[in-house]
Amino acid sequence: MARIRSKSFWSKVQQAWQIKKSLVCVGLDSDLNQLPACVKGDANPIYTFNSAIIEATQNYAAAYKPNLAFYLAAGVKGLEALKVTVESVPEDIPVILDCKIGDIGNTMDAYLEAFFEEIGVDAITVNPLMGSDVLNSILEDGRNFAFVLTLTSNPSAKDFFLKQDFYVKVAEWMKDFSSKQVGAVVGATQPEYLEQIRTLLPERIFLIPGIGAQGGDLQTVLSKAIQNPLLPNILINSSRSIIFKDKSANFAETAAAETLKLRDEIRQFLS
Amino acid sequence: MARIRSKSFWSKVQQAWQIKKSLVCVGLDSDLNQLPACVKGDANPIYTFNSAIIEATQNYAAAYKPNLAFYLAAGVKGLEALKVTVESVPEDIPVILDCKIGDIGNTMDAYLEAFFEEIGVDAITVNPLMGSDVLNSILEDGRNFAFVLTLTSNPSAKDFFLKQDFYVKVAEWMKDFSSKQVGAVVGATQPEYLEQIRTLLPERIFLIPGIGAQGGDLQTVLSKAIQNPLLPNILINSSRSIIFKDKSANFAETAAAETLKLRDEIRQFLS
Repeated sequence: MARIRSKSFWSKVQQAWQIKKSLVCVGLDSDLNQLPACVKGDANPIYTFNSAIIEATQNYAAAYKPNLAFYLAAGVKGLEALKVTVESVPEDIPVILDCKIGDIGNTMDAYLEAFFEEIGVDAITVNPLMGSDVLNSILEDGRNFAFVLTLTSNPSAKDFFLKQDFYVKVAEWMKDFSSKQVGAVVGATQPEYLEQIRTLLPERIFLIPGIGAQGGDLQTVLSKAIQNPLLPNILINSSRSIIFKDKSANFAETAAAETLKLRDEIRQFLS
Repeated sequence: MARIRSKSFWSKVQQAWQIKKSLVCVGLDSDLNQLPACVKGDANPIYTFNSAIIEATQNYAAAYKPNLAFYLAAGVKGLEALKVTVESVPEDIPVILDCKIGDIGNTMDAYLEAFFEEIGVDAITVNPLMGSDVLNSILEDGRNFAFVLTLTSNPSAKDFFLKQDFYVKVAEWMKDFSSKQVGAVVGATQPEYLEQIRTLLPERIFLIPGIGAQGGDLQTVLSKAIQNPLLPNILINSSRSIIFKDKSANFAETAAAETLKLRDEIRQFLS
């Protein structure tokens, strides 16, 4: 049984903002090798860890973002953990699967079945390089959402994204697709470009990784990415700095405190 | 237990050419919904199907290429099927996992653990958009190989790959990495560009999809992609046209006949 999805990703994000005043996406990069010792003896340690994190953080989290790689690295049990983790997320909190896929039509159809149907996520991240074939099948279901890699937060983003303004081409290309179903991944480590991409895409939801472990500065990012404080349309992702801040048996409480702290720092900026 | 890998992908490909005179990569796009009726009642139909295909085609196949999407679409059982499928491929035949991933370093490390260690493939396809971070971890193990998407065979390749010669930039970028560990995916449906990319990358192995179902012409492709008939350095992939040509109980024999036919057409061109 897959997770029930009665609302669209878009409306869940708006609701998280209106009701919880949260823009924090908790990244579930739940690497088996990095889990606290207290969960390692469990039958499915990744799930034990994730469900504790989700239970503790759900009042402050606007979204969750598991990263496919860390689940596949744990093999079949990892994929099982991903499925039950997604099922354990309250229905009104959107789940974004970070998989950065992008393929031809019939292959995309298979990925959609895997991620939106079988696992039941609300959104995925996609790599736009293969063009509109990557998005067409996703958009057939109005509940679905795709975050397009527009400018990533890693050092070697300079190899292609920053060459001849490739990121601008991606942003322009995205305008052919509804802002209710297509958003942008824009790394926090490149704030000088965030403002430019926001100007090009004023109404899109931006998923912004790179705060924390990767070194992006929150205040700078918020000032560049938000045009209208009443409709910020961003999700600030934090993974390792929330879930692996504390490796003791209090890991979930610490994750909740970190999520709340980040939520409130963003709130304060917007007030 | 993962599959044993004592030789590098590069040497397995050279050996397949020297011993079997085959350049045929059999694409295992084993979509559960497309399988012949005779295997559907089995406990793990994808594996039953694949192992029959592999047993029948192994004397003529230079490589196998399962596509991750079709396994994930079948959930946990699909991932199990992928693992046992890869284990059932004879050790000297290389396996390429078609996953088109590309991410930052710590995420790539997790994918490598999933694909090269846990499943035991010899090579993967990667999307270069995030830059050298995508390749650096892969190359740490000299047995590993990555095929970089250079120009894909789908219609919307025009959105980015063909804009301002992006495919040329990818080909140039690849030169920083050893040809023994990094090759190129170049679609068969764009033969006019194949020759140009071959000139830029004379010694790389090209993985060429798009023959058959997608409409690429074999003779044209061979004439553009091969400079030296003694060292062709290509793999011609065929998926649906081999594995789904016959949906009767004779599916494996038909797949073998199609693989042999394609192998011999290529041989004849080269003789």
